[in-house]
Amino acid sequence: MLYTSPALETLIERLSRLPTIGRKTAQRLALYLLKQPREDVAALATSIGTLQERVRTCSICANITELDPCPICRDSRRDRNVICVVEEPNDVLVIERTNEFKGLYHVLGGSLSPLEGVGPEDLKVRELLMRLRADDETSVKEIILAMDPNVEGEATTLYLAKLLSPLVDRVTRIARGIPIGSDLEYADDATLARALEGRTIV
Amino acid sequence: MLYTSPALETLIERLSRLPTIGRKTAQRLALYLLKQPREDVAALATSIGTLQERVRTCSICANITELDPCPICRDSRRDRNVICVVEEPNDVLVIERTNEFKGLYHVLGGSLSPLEGVGPEDLKVRELLMRLRADDETSVKEIILAMDPNVEGEATTLYLAKLLSPLVDRVTRIARGIPIGSDLEYADDATLARALEGRTIV
Repeated sequence: MLYTSPALETLIERLSRLPTIGRKTAQRLALYLLKQPREDVAALATSIGTLQERVRTCSICANITELDPCPICRDSRRDRNVICVVEEPNDVLVIERTNEFKGLYHVLGGSLSPLEGVGPEDLKVRELLMRLRADDETSVKEIILAMDPNVEGEATTLYLAKLLSPLVDRVTRIARGIPIGSDLEYADDATLARALEGRTIV
Repeated sequence: MLYTSPALETLIERLSRLPTIGRKTAQRLALYLLKQPREDVAALATSIGTLQERVRTCSICANITELDPCPICRDSRRDRNVICVVEEPNDVLVIERTNEFKGLYHVLGGSLSPLEGVGPEDLKVRELLMRLRADDETSVKEIILAMDPNVEGEATTLYLAKLLSPLVDRVTRIARGIPIGSDLEYADDATLARALEGRTIV
């Protein structure tokens, strides 16, 4: 694309490297930014530029934070008897949004994937074991495994269940079944099988 | 969302104001940026921050450029007999990509929309008339109108056709019809009607 501005071209190219953003969306975003008030664009640029300086990883739960330990780990109102293990920081946001969970978290940083060469030593598994053994965490009674419902998540769930069962009273996993608001007719076989298997008394 | 980093939260909020980016995509983008090499993120921030300083509008065709006049207007190899009128700078990129058009452009900056209070004086219509009257542009033989195929685009096309017809030999519009690669069965009635109306001899 010879005939446009190199500055614009560079921005489009950099935006289109981001996930979910193709060349066309990148073009649209860049042209949109061009028309916005100068201070809004500067604020976005600063937000992006200072993100990594300000954000770090909690030394206890490995979640994203600006303070260490993170606000969840230091909050005395949270239930210290339960730790919910998730794959990514995003999963913490998603679970927090439900307002259903008042315990602590542990972010693994991924899931076991032999094909991609990701083993337990690449995840925060050792850190989780250390939390369970540490003095102030001996109160942990339950570990909830909330992995993504795919092959890697399943492998991680089974691995952790085996590893953690001797150390805590209960190791549980979140329910798999028909999503709320969907249609039974369109549920896939695997989901429906899990839903039947996990049926509860009404 | 109390429990995440304010820097991250601010970035997510600012990203989600962009077109086509909702809250979930903004979260995903922010968390992606967090994991990228520091220099890549800094480069993106700089690209966004310096965009408006570097990019301006061509004083002849109103297209986006860093040099004034823009590279298309100053290119002696372009055909000065034809001007293609488009709504937005993005349309120039799209037409340039086809490599089919070797004339000049004129970017209106929008389309006529009485409902939104956009009249001819809000678009670069006066500038287009001045181009046609200027000495070095008297060579213009054809104006191609390439507006978006919607109500506003149609109104703009009819308005400009009436205004420009006395000034140039030919005022044309780009063809409306069945898009290449699509299925006749799924074409809407209006498109199909235009396609029949605009039929050509094989």
